[in-house]
Amino acid sequence: MRMSLVGFIGLGNMGGHMARNLMKNGRSLIVFDLNKAVTEQFKADGAIVAKHPADVAAAAKEIMTVLPSSPHVRNVYTGDNGILKTIQPDTLCMDSSTIDQTVSIEMARLLREKKSLYIDAPISGGVGGAQAATLTFMVGSGSDQVFERAKVILSAMGKNIVNLGAVGNGQAAKICNNMLLGIHMIAVAETMNLGIKMGLDKKALAGILNTSSGRCWSSDTYNPVPGVIEGIPPSKGYSGGFGTTLMAKDLSLAQNAATNVQAPTPLGSLSHQIYRLLAQDPQFQAKDFGVVYQFLKDNTK
Amino acid sequence: MRMSLVGFIGLGNMGGHMARNLMKNGRSLIVFDLNKAVTEQFKADGAIVAKHPADVAAAAKEIMTVLPSSPHVRNVYTGDNGILKTIQPDTLCMDSSTIDQTVSIEMARLLREKKSLYIDAPISGGVGGAQAATLTFMVGSGSDQVFERAKVILSAMGKNIVNLGAVGNGQAAKICNNMLLGIHMIAVAETMNLGIKMGLDKKALAGILNTSSGRCWSSDTYNPVPGVIEGIPPSKGYSGGFGTTLMAKDLSLAQNAATNVQAPTPLGSLSHQIYRLLAQDPQFQAKDFGVVYQFLKDNTK
Amino acid sequence: MRMSLVGFIGLGNMGGHMARNLMKNGRSLIVFDLNKAVTEQFKADGAIVAKHPADVAAAAKEIMTVLPSSPHVRNVYTGDNGILKTIQPDTLCMDSSTIDQTVSIEMARLLREKKSLYIDAPISGGVGGAQAATLTFMVGSGSDQVFERAKVILSAMGKNIVNLGAVGNGQAAKICNNMLLGIHMIAVAETMNLGIKMGLDKKALAGILNTSSGRCWSSDTYNPVPGVIEGIPPSKGYSGGFGTTLMAKDLSLAQNAATNVQAPTPLGSLSHQIYRLLAQDPQFQAKDFGVVYQFLKDNTK
Amino acid sequence: MRMSLVGFIGLGNMGGHMARNLMKNGRSLIVFDLNKAVTEQFKADGAIVAKHPADVAAAAKEIMTVLPSSPHVRNVYTGDNGILKTIQPDTLCMDSSTIDQTVSIEMARLLREKKSLYIDAPISGGVGGAQAATLTFMVGSGSDQVFERAKVILSAMGKNIVNLGAVGNGQAAKICNNMLLGIHMIAVAETMNLGIKMGLDKKALAGILNTSSGRCWSSDTYNPVPGVIEGIPPSKGYSGGFGTTLMAKDLSLAQNAATNVQAPTPLGSLSHQIYRLLAQDPQFQAKDFGVVYQFLKDNTK
Repeated sequence: MRMSLVGFIGLGNMGGHMARNLMKNGRSLIVFDLNKAVTEQFKADGAIVAKHPADVAAAAKEIMTVLPSSPHVRNVYTGDNGILKTIQPDTLCMDSSTIDQTVSIEMARLLREKKSLYIDAPISGGVGGAQAATLTFMVGSGSDQVFERAKVILSAMGKNIVNLGAVGNGQAAKICNNMLLGIHMIAVAETMNLGIKMGLDKKALAGILNTSSGRCWSSDTYNPVPGVIEGIPPSKGYSGGFGTTLMAKDLSLAQNAATNVQAPTPLGSLSHQIYRLLAQDPQFQAKDFGVVYQFLKDNTK
Repeated sequence: MRMSLVGFIGLGNMGGHMARNLMKNGRSLIVFDLNKAVTEQFKADGAIVAKHPADVAAAAKEIMTVLPSSPHVRNVYTGDNGILKTIQPDTLCMDSSTIDQTVSIEMARLLREKKSLYIDAPISGGVGGAQAATLTFMVGSGSDQVFERAKVILSAMGKNIVNLGAVGNGQAAKICNNMLLGIHMIAVAETMNLGIKMGLDKKALAGILNTSSGRCWSSDTYNPVPGVIEGIPPSKGYSGGFGTTLMAKDLSLAQNAATNVQAPTPLGSLSHQIYRLLAQDPQFQAKDFGVVYQFLKDNTK
Repeated sequence: MRMSLVGFIGLGNMGGHMARNLMKNGRSLIVFDLNKAVTEQFKADGAIVAKHPADVAAAAKEIMTVLPSSPHVRNVYTGDNGILKTIQPDTLCMDSSTIDQTVSIEMARLLREKKSLYIDAPISGGVGGAQAATLTFMVGSGSDQVFERAKVILSAMGKNIVNLGAVGNGQAAKICNNMLLGIHMIAVAETMNLGIKMGLDKKALAGILNTSSGRCWSSDTYNPVPGVIEGIPPSKGYSGGFGTTLMAKDLSLAQNAATNVQAPTPLGSLSHQIYRLLAQDPQFQAKDFGVVYQFLKDNTK
Repeated sequence: MRMSLVGFIGLGNMGGHMARNLMKNGRSLIVFDLNKAVTEQFKADGAIVAKHPADVAAAAKEIMTVLPSSPHVRNVYTGDNGILKTIQPDTLCMDSSTIDQTVSIEMARLLREKKSLYIDAPISGGVGGAQAATLTFMVGSGSDQVFERAKVILSAMGKNIVNLGAVGNGQAAKICNNMLLGIHMIAVAETMNLGIKMGLDKKALAGILNTSSGRCWSSDTYNPVPGVIEGIPPSKGYSGGFGTTLMAKDLSLAQNAATNVQAPTPLGSLSHQIYRLLAQDPQFQAKDFGVVYQFLKDNTK
């Protein structure tokens, strides 16, 4: 039995690797992206290149979307040449964008009206995970049956496909994790800076934290102090990695959600403001979010 | 060869278990504590009970002190009947109190004038670790030789004895870890509350965080939401554990240190204020610090 | 010359007094509100009562709207029986609701398509000012001519009608003022609490602040400590006044706007979180926002 | 009757002008300062120059001290050549330094043992007020009689001499005012930045705030946005005025006090951290504290 064509919209830093992993897995793709250089490459590798999202929806009944923000998602689904114009019944759209939960829920409603399905399946694991097909997918599918159908596709791109229940729950989980991560990175940066100023060796301090109750991913896997862990962005001039602007964006989604459900988030909201300061500072704007360590340390010496 | 007497001052929640572990290890103790009920029990078990810290110092050349705060330490060492009155040359005082780094450094200086040694060796691992002799000691000893001498004693009470260099570095590491822990606990509380309000199941959310970049001890080992992890204080009405008042105290030490070395700590300072609010609220004052989750969640429903 | 009928939609705490002031000024009104008890009273006093906002728009070419939030405004203007269904060319809608700036701008666009005018004219001055016709109107009218037309009506309800330029600028000014006010009230509460705990007499401290660089409306006119200023809500059990829930709402508008224009607001965002905590606490929820003083002071004594 | 000699220790930015005003008022001075250039000038103008604080105390029974921080005060009073070495009975020391309340209280105790008097009399009004003799003195004198004695001297340097009761209350009032001021300046900076980004004219926005409930000294007298008020530091490149480093110091005193009396100060503590960030940034370090506006605004455009 020949496997059906899969649609893929959004071939950026994450989406590009994900689409290639689908192809490695034996899938034929029809792709769309605004960046011609990228689509040319996919064409060379055997993918069909669509002119519009609508053309993807006309050809494929399984569609991945991996887009930068809520307005992009709205446009790809509901725009003039959007998916909704041509979508076939029983299509499954899997959206791995990190966006407002309310937008995911709205898209699902619009697709239901077309007898189709929308699930939110945001990802964690970074560019490395996208490339190695080791991503985690946080899936809000609404039913086990839909989840199982999605899992067939998603498994080619990740190793951890989590069923979180209702549509929107994927976004909730993603936003919660990233809010916590955003707080932790600042917390580790200020803690490391304090300890170093008090006289501790940076590696000795990290060693204590990593084996004590202060342990966290931001200290043991992605320590923001250059030289504590080799090979990660903080040890490479904060180049690559996860940018301050993206973190500011994810924390703004968390703040929107917190206002919506009326949940107080004192540290999440202060962290949001700190990344916003970084995101508008020419020194820090284009750097990995671990650069908050440089923002906090004394720059007069 | 008969082992020499060890002095032990401060037989509270932590010190009591630690002293017993020394006795189990075959050590004879001379102890001091203001609480008579406690010293009576140690007497019944074979320890000598001293009238004053000075009596301890007259009898023992290895002395542990485990006290609640900087003023207590000052008083036990420099008070009218304090250790300094009778200390013998070449005595080693090991202070496992969590106090101001500046006080540790001052005590070390005063003991040096008496040809004796003071090291700071604050602990992590909680009451459970004290009882099971699995504590971590963060040691600021000033030299490898002194560290090795201390290790002989400390090993009877903990399993992880870390040499951090100069006197005061133990306090620095302890304060840094606890500041990070204090921030993380609030961060996890607000993240879990947000996610639950957005529709996620609490265990599913914790599962995502614990396998993603938001992972930390406060989510995977001590999650503040009742029922996520059984057997810990948050699942037992926040009884036992580490009190909000103690966390407020440790964060005030961190803030003093940060002001001293001029390190900005935006999240550490806001967290300090939040624990201070808890510590003065009759509902939360006597509870484990995970109760910050109850403080943040909606109490009108 | 007989004056034309004025439409008035939203007869709540503020709107009710404002509509009465228009009537005192000789204006005939056609009114709409969901609360029948209120509209009955207006009917008894000579106003026409409309069934729907659309009926108001069919009858009047000058319409005031004073509504609680963005969704209410959207519904009154664009709903099934909304103003837009029947609006006459050259109608001037003056909206004194405090809402998202983006909604004001959108309403203005929709009315322009109907050859009509929408201005935002949010108010300050409280219920007292509404009653005494001494409100300040912050007007985003788009042109001097429109402003002058609106001023004829607004002057009957306020004494300070400020022309701020483009539509949406009224909301910007209102939100900015209320964000600053919200911060100040917490700031004064924590300052007064600190000073009193340090030994100062509350009136002596307020006296110093009010004649020094700490001077502000929240200290010299609306001091949150009971007994400092008589006759205001903080001296009357925090009853009446401006509720914590309303302040939380206004600060959420400020946060939405700040995210929108990417302006960092560290104190505004922390203040928002504090009012959110108050708004979900049964003790503080229904109280004047000065009650933040009670939230901060030690409640164990 | 010839007036007695007045001692004056600390001839810096504030003290220099204050001492001159005493001389203008007909007082003969004996002065001390480490800066020889300054004391030479006072000598030329007729003052006696002392070698040490002790020489001042040997010659004068009314002594002003105007010093930068707690350690300086401790040293001038209790150091090897300090005031306490030679102080005459019934001397009145008036300390206008801004320092830890606990240090003021300790100095008063030490002077009482010498049958002398210490009062804290910190000042507000800035360099301008020092020069024009229009300062406010916040006096913690302990008794009306002592206050009246001090007032005779202080009136030559200020126009508002406030009796606040117990020794230490002057520091409490000063610290409270400056904490409130420090918060307000950031609050106005973020509010103005938000409003301007939302489209408002800066002067129109300031006008609204200054006539509404957001009114405060930092908006109506010392607005941090360049060009809103002419002639103040924010309109002169943030030169002169009150430096970010001094504000960071005053807020650290407030935080010490808050920890001491256990008063939660969420905004005071966050503001402290923000000034600390400014104080260690080469761009902002030497500038007036209104420069927080530049820190918050978008610097990428």
